[in-house]
Amino acid sequence: MKILIVGAGGTLGHAVVAELGQRHEIVSAGRQSGDLRVDIADPASVRALFEKTGPLDAIVCAAGSVHFGPLDTFTEEQFARGINDKLMGQVRLVREGVAHLRDGGSFTLITGILTDQPIVQGVSASMVNGAVEAFVRAAAIELPRGIRINAVSPTILTESMGSYGPYFRGFEPVPAARAALAFSRSVEGAETGRVYKIH
Amino acid sequence: MKILIVGAGGTLGHAVVAELGQRHEIVSAGRQSGDLRVDIADPASVRALFEKTGPLDAIVCAAGSVHFGPLDTFTEEQFARGINDKLMGQVRLVREGVAHLRDGGSFTLITGILTDQPIVQGVSASMVNGAVEAFVRAAAIELPRGIRINAVSPTILTESMGSYGPYFRGFEPVPAARAALAFSRSVEGAETGRVYKIH
Repeated sequence: MKILIVGAGGTLGHAVVAELGQRHEIVSAGRQSGDLRVDIADPASVRALFEKTGPLDAIVCAAGSVHFGPLDTFTEEQFARGINDKLMGQVRLVREGVAHLRDGGSFTLITGILTDQPIVQGVSASMVNGAVEAFVRAAAIELPRGIRINAVSPTILTESMGSYGPYFRGFEPVPAARAALAFSRSVEGAETGRVYKIH
Repeated sequence: MKILIVGAGGTLGHAVVAELGQRHEIVSAGRQSGDLRVDIADPASVRALFEKTGPLDAIVCAAGSVHFGPLDTFTEEQFARGINDKLMGQVRLVREGVAHLRDGGSFTLITGILTDQPIVQGVSASMVNGAVEAFVRAAAIELPRGIRINAVSPTILTESMGSYGPYFRGFEPVPAARAALAFSRSVEGAETGRVYKIH
């Protein structure tokens, strides 16, 4: 398969490339690194990305930014960041990418444990993850030509404990390589409309 | 209790007023009717609303607009409608309303069955409902002074079958009065961070 991995330069993205790269042709994309550059928060950048990829068998996203902060200090702009990047950025990949996927291709999006299990200061992450998961269930029944869509929802990654650990006290971390297996399951499996919870 | 009900003029809002109005003082609000006028899609309108309500014991929302249409025709603007109205409109009610709630007060927001059970053309409704439900779980652990927050997720209402029935073939409708009971349970109960599914 030829697989586009957006956010390939991140902690999780690296692990997904390592897992899927063993068996497939990878096209890596990211804001600051990769074979192709893309900012998913910018609709024009997402459109331009697919002018360069050619036909694909799978589109994977391991990217998405949200603001973390106390609920009582959140501004409209801080909520808008997560909505425009991790939520609508991934929706854009689906909307623009579908025409570039071969029959039976797949999308795999990224969410996270905060959909179900909140942390203090994580209200935007929870909201955006919950939106992406419901979007995946809904898009699954409308995508054409046997194209599938799933999400992967990891808990805090072992490799991210240095930076995010203080927000996730008591959460059991998982190695990025374990979360990457769920991307393999989505891309190389046959299910659709699923959220693979790695926690 | 003194209870603000946003969307009081709608099908569900009417039933919520009928239920809670038996025992409590209701302040009704809506875009086109009610004691007070508010457009939750407009941050300034939400701020202005709370300058007129005075202190409240509960804030209830039975309002929220989203676009329905096929996934492959959805535009950025059509997604933005649901995000700015049903999602961020309700988040605004929480952000602006919290200072006007008495200790131990509550928020009750509205979502819907499409979070879990999608329909064709409902991708924006699913996304927005999923976002609101995750927001409720996350906000519940950050709200101060014993203030609670829950969501009510009804299926298609019996009273709405004339207009929405064709989208919901095979779904078992519930009377608005039954969905209104869940609002009573949220407002007059003691739980927080819950999604009451009326389906």
